[in-house]
Amino acid sequence: MRDRIRNEVFLDRVMTADDAAGLIGDGDIIATSGFTGAGYPKAVPQALARRIEAAHAEGHPFTVRLLTGASTGPQLDGALARADGVAFRCPYNGDPTMRTRINEGRTLYLDMHLGQVAQKAQQGQFGRPDVAIIEAVGVTPDGQLVLSSSVGNSPTWVQLARRIIIEVNTWQNPELGGIHDIWQGGCLPPGGQPIPLLHPGDRIGSGTLPIDTDRLAAVVVTDEPDRNAPFAEPDETARQIAGHVLEFLDHEVSQGRLPHSLLPLQSGVGNIANAVLEGLNTSRFENLTGFSEVIQDGMLSMLESGRMTVASASSFSLSPLAAERINDNAAFFRKKIVLRQQEVSNSPELIRRLGIIAMNGMIEADIYGNVNSTCVMGSRIQNGIGGSGDFARNAFLSIFVSPSTAKGGKISAFVPMVPHTDHILQDVQVIISEQGVADLRGLAPTERARQVISRCAHPDYRPMLQDYFEQARAHAFGQHIPHHLPAALAWHQRYMETGSMKS
Amino acid sequence: MRDRIRNEVFLDRVMTADDAAGLIGDGDIIATSGFTGAGYPKAVPQALARRIEAAHAEGHPFTVRLLTGASTGPQLDGALARADGVAFRCPYNGDPTMRTRINEGRTLYLDMHLGQVAQKAQQGQFGRPDVAIIEAVGVTPDGQLVLSSSVGNSPTWVQLARRIIIEVNTWQNPELGGIHDIWQGGCLPPGGQPIPLLHPGDRIGSGTLPIDTDRLAAVVVTDEPDRNAPFAEPDETARQIAGHVLEFLDHEVSQGRLPHSLLPLQSGVGNIANAVLEGLNTSRFENLTGFSEVIQDGMLSMLESGRMTVASASSFSLSPLAAERINDNAAFFRKKIVLRQQEVSNSPELIRRLGIIAMNGMIEADIYGNVNSTCVMGSRIQNGIGGSGDFARNAFLSIFVSPSTAKGGKISAFVPMVPHTDHILQDVQVIISEQGVADLRGLAPTERARQVISRCAHPDYRPMLQDYFEQARAHAFGQHIPHHLPAALAWHQRYMETGSMKS
Repeated sequence: MRDRIRNEVFLDRVMTADDAAGLIGDGDIIATSGFTGAGYPKAVPQALARRIEAAHAEGHPFTVRLLTGASTGPQLDGALARADGVAFRCPYNGDPTMRTRINEGRTLYLDMHLGQVAQKAQQGQFGRPDVAIIEAVGVTPDGQLVLSSSVGNSPTWVQLARRIIIEVNTWQNPELGGIHDIWQGGCLPPGGQPIPLLHPGDRIGSGTLPIDTDRLAAVVVTDEPDRNAPFAEPDETARQIAGHVLEFLDHEVSQGRLPHSLLPLQSGVGNIANAVLEGLNTSRFENLTGFSEVIQDGMLSMLESGRMTVASASSFSLSPLAAERINDNAAFFRKKIVLRQQEVSNSPELIRRLGIIAMNGMIEADIYGNVNSTCVMGSRIQNGIGGSGDFARNAFLSIFVSPSTAKGGKISAFVPMVPHTDHILQDVQVIISEQGVADLRGLAPTERARQVISRCAHPDYRPMLQDYFEQARAHAFGQHIPHHLPAALAWHQRYMETGSMKS
Repeated sequence: MRDRIRNEVFLDRVMTADDAAGLIGDGDIIATSGFTGAGYPKAVPQALARRIEAAHAEGHPFTVRLLTGASTGPQLDGALARADGVAFRCPYNGDPTMRTRINEGRTLYLDMHLGQVAQKAQQGQFGRPDVAIIEAVGVTPDGQLVLSSSVGNSPTWVQLARRIIIEVNTWQNPELGGIHDIWQGGCLPPGGQPIPLLHPGDRIGSGTLPIDTDRLAAVVVTDEPDRNAPFAEPDETARQIAGHVLEFLDHEVSQGRLPHSLLPLQSGVGNIANAVLEGLNTSRFENLTGFSEVIQDGMLSMLESGRMTVASASSFSLSPLAAERINDNAAFFRKKIVLRQQEVSNSPELIRRLGIIAMNGMIEADIYGNVNSTCVMGSRIQNGIGGSGDFARNAFLSIFVSPSTAKGGKISAFVPMVPHTDHILQDVQVIISEQGVADLRGLAPTERARQVISRCAHPDYRPMLQDYFEQARAHAFGQHIPHHLPAALAWHQRYMETGSMKS
């Protein structure tokens, strides 16, 4: 333990997870580390969930308001949701039980741009956190934290919280020390300064996070890996989409609109993203860089092969095997990877300045290229907007990717009107499905519709979309963005009634 | 003429507007100065409109693709639209004839974030402009332009266009020289640098705009004021909304969430905006600053009174009387006002860094606080998104204001679902109508709905909205953002069918 916790004050505060969870009360605002399933606290939340269940069994109310970096794992979101212990959750969730609670209306969910959470918290929009629970790999002799597999909002939470609980996770490799870059230059206006970052690999802060030990309430030692989902091998559809993305980028380079090393890449997670990154790893492009919010298996492979020189993100989102590769080669990767707090990894200032190529998934787009990333049938939250809004609006190139259908063809990813908008048509420049590429740059809405229908929609749905478009042009209140409102959401209603969008 | 055009090359190119318009051909891409009805070229576009009409009369096709800064005036958008001479228009229009052409489907319209137009143009998304037509107040001995009452995208257009036409408008006061600040540090990535602006009044560039005289095709002398709409005296509703805005800002200061000098103000145009600014001009706040895209009558009065110390924008949008005040006191105002190109005035980097208080109008909001700023009944364009997206997403405080009803109560500005989204709920923090203030910060969607219905909606529509909300909760596919799709757009359909949203 003393090799990880090299500071006496922290050693004095070591206690069990149950004792630490005992510091948390009904109604507390809990702010935790953790981003895309990495670097979140594991023992104290489970102990808290047990406390909550016990209180409920005795008929006492006990819920907390939960703020994180982004998604966490079963030991945090899962355990607290199963205990019915979360009244309010912000800003991004990927846990299935928590998702169910939100969609049942039992947990309120505030879905925010990930790059804005820290500033909004400093403005007081969530109230002052009662307890921060932060995972670290160790504590330096002068009492600073070496964070683990994500940075997320941890710098903000330790700054704001009344009390701080640290989980020191001995499973995580202590050599992660040095991979983090924590910028202390952020402040509420007035007095803001430029973020002094000019290249994805720049280090602009310090590698460790100082803690006010007056507020240090507990230190808990754990030994458990992050939730890491097994690597999903790209299927044929994902490979087709990736192929179109690569052709498109190739074309942009040949037209002189992108340099041969492209521009810094942002990519979501999942099998399409990994297929794209796999493709780039065997492409003719060289000296690539990443400026993203997560580092997934595909980016790791590109760093190992040398195809990518450096990657910046706020966290890892890895398969168990890839997580072990990081842990086994921490000294190598900490030269190639910079993990930043999420208001820096997702900063509009930096995304615009660096000229990011943003690639994000979606649930559906309408014919005009408005994108729904979050709410199935307009109402049921899937995960959240994450960083897609930060990146898509400010990117040099904003690409959305999706298979053209879901649920065995019963759902079309291209619909007359999206019942929920996350990305307005101005922020959606290119859409790519396994069918092809709709390059929407410079086009008016009706031109966009023709591209989306003919290039991206599945052939089964193309005639239906074309019918809607003609009907809309015949009935619309104006021809700028023609819609026929009585039919605009009929596909979604039909799916809810019959189980298929097909008529 | 020689007192305005102090360079021989420019003098050599002086010709009539008809001769200059003769340089423009069918299919050309025309890129002009002009932003919110200020500083747009006036003579050449009218001469071009005459050419187009003559060609059409002879059965020849003749249209142009028109790029501007933002809205212009009757001599440009109006004249070309009346001539049926515009195939494509971007990025913002306020002219009624052009609006009609767009909504008839005869002119394609690309509505963009005003802060992104320059970069997208440099990326080649509109094609290379054939001709730039730029209004100036004069030419320096070394051949640089002194721009007139706006900067807009002029630096980008003179950089990109094959040929450049300058209109030297002798109506505009030559003492406007020195009011402009043209930053030459922007470039396409890679190689981007921070924008070195820390305070709204900072000057980071040069006061004049260099021109490549090899591409200078014509110089035309004009003497005509900008289109300036008479000042619309705020009505009772506007004053009530302004009163709520001031109370809200007062409350934020009293809670320590805003400094006593507030933060730099962004404000749209119109009588609500002027009522808010009038109210601020007699408030207890002092040393205010403006960081906006336009300077309207209200901001001018605040600069004159000393209540506001400095205002940054891309243009003026003034009543005729206020325009004369500027012209009569140019030497005073050029110390208090900085006019910038629109990718700087509307820069996400600067809006975030300075911590702007953004106040924008809207057409309607839905109960969850998604805002439609542009498309009546989802289809008919009103003006365009303008800079509202640049400001609302990146602001410290994002406020939307609107009367609760329109068309004598037949339209509610608060509806079950917006049929077009310009501002997603994440970007809408506060909504204010004459009924009151809905402070949506930190709230989940269903909490937002209760606020919007009870605080902002007109009492006539509150029970209808409450009915929808309950129906939505009963029928929704999920309780995160409850919607009942068959009823979601029924209010808009009813208005189109019966002339009223009331059932």
